Amino acid sequence: MKLLIPHDFSYEKYHPGVTDLPYDATGARLKDEILRRTDAIEVILAASPEETEAALPTAGAIVSYSVSAERLAAARKLRWIQAASAGIDHFFKSSGVSSAALAARGIILTKAAGVSRIVIGEHVFAMILALTRGVPRAVRQQLDHRWEIFMGGEVHGRTLAIVGLGEIGERVAELARAFGMTVIGTRRSEGAYHGHAHQVYPATQLDTVLGRADIIVLACSLNDATRGLMNRARLSATKRGAYLVNIARGEVLVEADLIEALQSGRIAAAALDTFGQTASGALRDLEALRPESPLWDMENVLVMPNNAAATSEIFAYLADIIVDNYCRLVAGEPVLNLASD
Amino acid sequence: MKLLIPHDFSYEKYHPGVTDLPYDATGARLKDEILRRTDAIEVILAASPEETEAALPTAGAIVSYSVSAERLAAARKLRWIQAASAGIDHFFKSSGVSSAALAARGIILTKAAGVSRIVIGEHVFAMILALTRGVPRAVRQQLDHRWEIFMGGEVHGRTLAIVGLGEIGERVAELARAFGMTVIGTRRSEGAYHGHAHQVYPATQLDTVLGRADIIVLACSLNDATRGLMNRARLSATKRGAYLVNIARGEVLVEADLIEALQSGRIAAAALDTFGQTASGALRDLEALRPESPLWDMENVLVMPNNAAATSEIFAYLADIIVDNYCRLVAGEPVLNLASD
Repeated sequence: MKLLIPHDFSYEKYHPGVTDLPYDATGARLKDEILRRTDAIEVILAASPEETEAALPTAGAIVSYSVSAERLAAARKLRWIQAASAGIDHFFKSSGVSSAALAARGIILTKAAGVSRIVIGEHVFAMILALTRGVPRAVRQQLDHRWEIFMGGEVHGRTLAIVGLGEIGERVAELARAFGMTVIGTRRSEGAYHGHAHQVYPATQLDTVLGRADIIVLACSLNDATRGLMNRARLSATKRGAYLVNIARGEVLVEADLIEALQSGRIAAAALDTFGQTASGALRDLEALRPESPLWDMENVLVMPNNAAATSEIFAYLADIIVDNYCRLVAGEPVLNLASD
Repeated sequence: MKLLIPHDFSYEKYHPGVTDLPYDATGARLKDEILRRTDAIEVILAASPEETEAALPTAGAIVSYSVSAERLAAARKLRWIQAASAGIDHFFKSSGVSSAALAARGIILTKAAGVSRIVIGEHVFAMILALTRGVPRAVRQQLDHRWEIFMGGEVHGRTLAIVGLGEIGERVAELARAFGMTVIGTRRSEGAYHGHAHQVYPATQLDTVLGRADIIVLACSLNDATRGLMNRARLSATKRGAYLVNIARGEVLVEADLIEALQSGRIAAAALDTFGQTASGALRDLEALRPESPLWDMENVLVMPNNAAATSEIFAYLADIIVDNYCRLVAGEPVLNLASD
């Protein structure tokens, strides 16, 4: 089964501002990582639109951030699409195809669940510790050549709430325990829980969880149930002075309500790297902070440029997932992380 | 045995810039923390110079950041001084007494070893992750309202070198393992090692350790062997592009040599919160960054205002140490963390 990496596969595609990539974020890098793991996969790395077009009719699998309806029509032997990201909402938005359409053709779609758990786990603790220790304040003081001691807060002994205990949430929980935190959280799935959190609640008890937390991490996927989840009512359920870190899509937060909570001190400080509303509405701008947003100037907000998952190792983790699923597919075993809209 | 907290005991004393302490950092807070643990200790909290003077002749113990020669002479029944900090160099500098003088009077001096291991462990990871994830760069971009994505580095799988595996170094090692790092380090003591590092070297092999590390944490105490330890020769032994975090005294680094290493890219970035040379030479300014230092304007330097250990929990940990040593002393057991100059 041939695995096609289209010519326009590239992490940069969704990061147009990246001018100093310290590594190779192209399909070539991904191909290398796959071949380093196995020589059983025939990887076709297309170098041009013509090569992508030529490879489509015989490709059994495609790895991509999206697959257009045109490519889908041309890929007559396609059995499997491996989305290159863990979040699948962008895939459907940009591809313009539905789960039903894929299912009707017997095409399996898998997401790269967990691809960024290590990287984002580090991002989350970079954010939590930056907020509790006042790193943004220190940077502003340094720019002003101002020596002014201030106190930081501690995470040890504090309660961390993770909204959405998936792959990323679990990694965050694991690290939080090492720091000596009490970890609580919500999750969609029912049944026995075998993760790292000390206590888990169903999503319906989110307010209880928020009310207990000193630090809140949003790590849920974006869907109809979570769009606008953190609105004024929900933010009022938090403990006064809690810290907030969002690593979910920006649309999980209602920006105006968050600004209000940050101004009132209900939320002491927030670290954000995705934002919901943009001027252009283009995919690549979907998560950028609008130029006119008041968030830019708020001293208790740390704006990160949508780079929670942006490190050099991401393609190594993606290759692990691809090789694993490929082997399962050719062996007739169930693939991991089937995705649907 | 009466334990005296002098009227001028205060964490703020050494942090004159602190204007917004979010907690009570006075002797009253320390007394509360001690009494919360035991009612066996008679704690005398002096409210004025007169009260300190009046209490000295009958005090069996003093907890303080320093004890002047005058107070020492007046404290005729003194058996034990508990220094309020883990580092003991400041105690001797400011007290102007020697180990020998104390020993001649049979006075035990103990340091608060480990008092800040939890707090500083968090500070170290705040620094490491701020450097690897580019938090200072993000803050500068935010101040400019600039949306520009950049990539971060990962700590997972990287090698961390800890120079000085004491109480703090061990806590850092413990956290580093949770992040999936390889941990190496140096220590003074010989004999079997039962700590968290994967591999430990004697201080004589520091260059070997530095050469293997992606991230270096300086956590050694300041003494004749470590003053100026990180000079040009030593900085040349590091791996090109390593990150450096200093939580030891500023004098462990030779500032001019560090600046050179940061300019050449030998050291990719550094997080510093103590500095060696100051204009005034006064104790309280000992670790402040001089106004004329080029470090202020270096984008690959994160200047923190000497607040690695400055959080609200520090007195709770100090009370633990005091109560433990007090109980040992009255029971005739050996006290912990005897200190000498």
